Amino acid sequence: MKVIQLSATDDFTPGAMKRHFLVEDSPHFKIINFNLDAGVTFPVHAHDLDGELSIFVLEGDGFFLGADHMEMAAFPGDLLISEIREPHGVRAQTKMRILVTIAPPI
Amino acid sequence: MKVIQLSATDDFTPGAMKRHFLVEDSPHFKIINFNLDAGVTFPVHAHDLDGELSIFVLEGDGFFLGADHMEMAAFPGDLLISEIREPHGVRAQTKMRILVTIAPPI
Repeated sequence: MKVIQLSATDDFTPGAMKRHFLVEDSPHFKIINFNLDAGVTFPVHAHDLDGELSIFVLEGDGFFLGADHMEMAAFPGDLLISEIREPHGVRAQTKMRILVTIAPPI
Repeated sequence: MKVIQLSATDDFTPGAMKRHFLVEDSPHFKIINFNLDAGVTFPVHAHDLDGELSIFVLEGDGFFLGADHMEMAAFPGDLLISEIREPHGVRAQTKMRILVTIAPPI
């Protein structure tokens, strides 16, 4: 059992996406905090694996991205649920912090 | 793929804990939003199963609870990671909203 304070990972890399692994070694899930600078895109991608992921918007505004150039507005408190094999991504409009949970981990 | 707005589940039951299932049927994880009224305790419990869970504090202040009366302060942005078989719970000091992810679902 451990407690992680996401206030401690509130740092950004100018023009890029910064990745903080919060749980690296669990066989059950992986939890990652990504901080995207304004305008940065986490490109749409997918993996041909069974599994599911959630993307929770901690701070900032942007868009959830999907197949066929689909975009859905993403605000703090919004939660995307997606199969790992479904195309998914994020585009930050402002500085944006997201929490990604992947089960099982890949 | 679906987007859930947690702003839509911002309701409380006086003196109790309200449970919103956000993902019910996934074989990979279960995601639940619990809203605890001020002073309410989500009692310490554990299940003798392999698996892991995270508890993310969305809003409000309280404590993460563990074995042997352990208490750790819990503020918005704090994330508890625990094995399912480790005793875990939450006590709300103010009104408190938490997001629980359990993998695999139980």
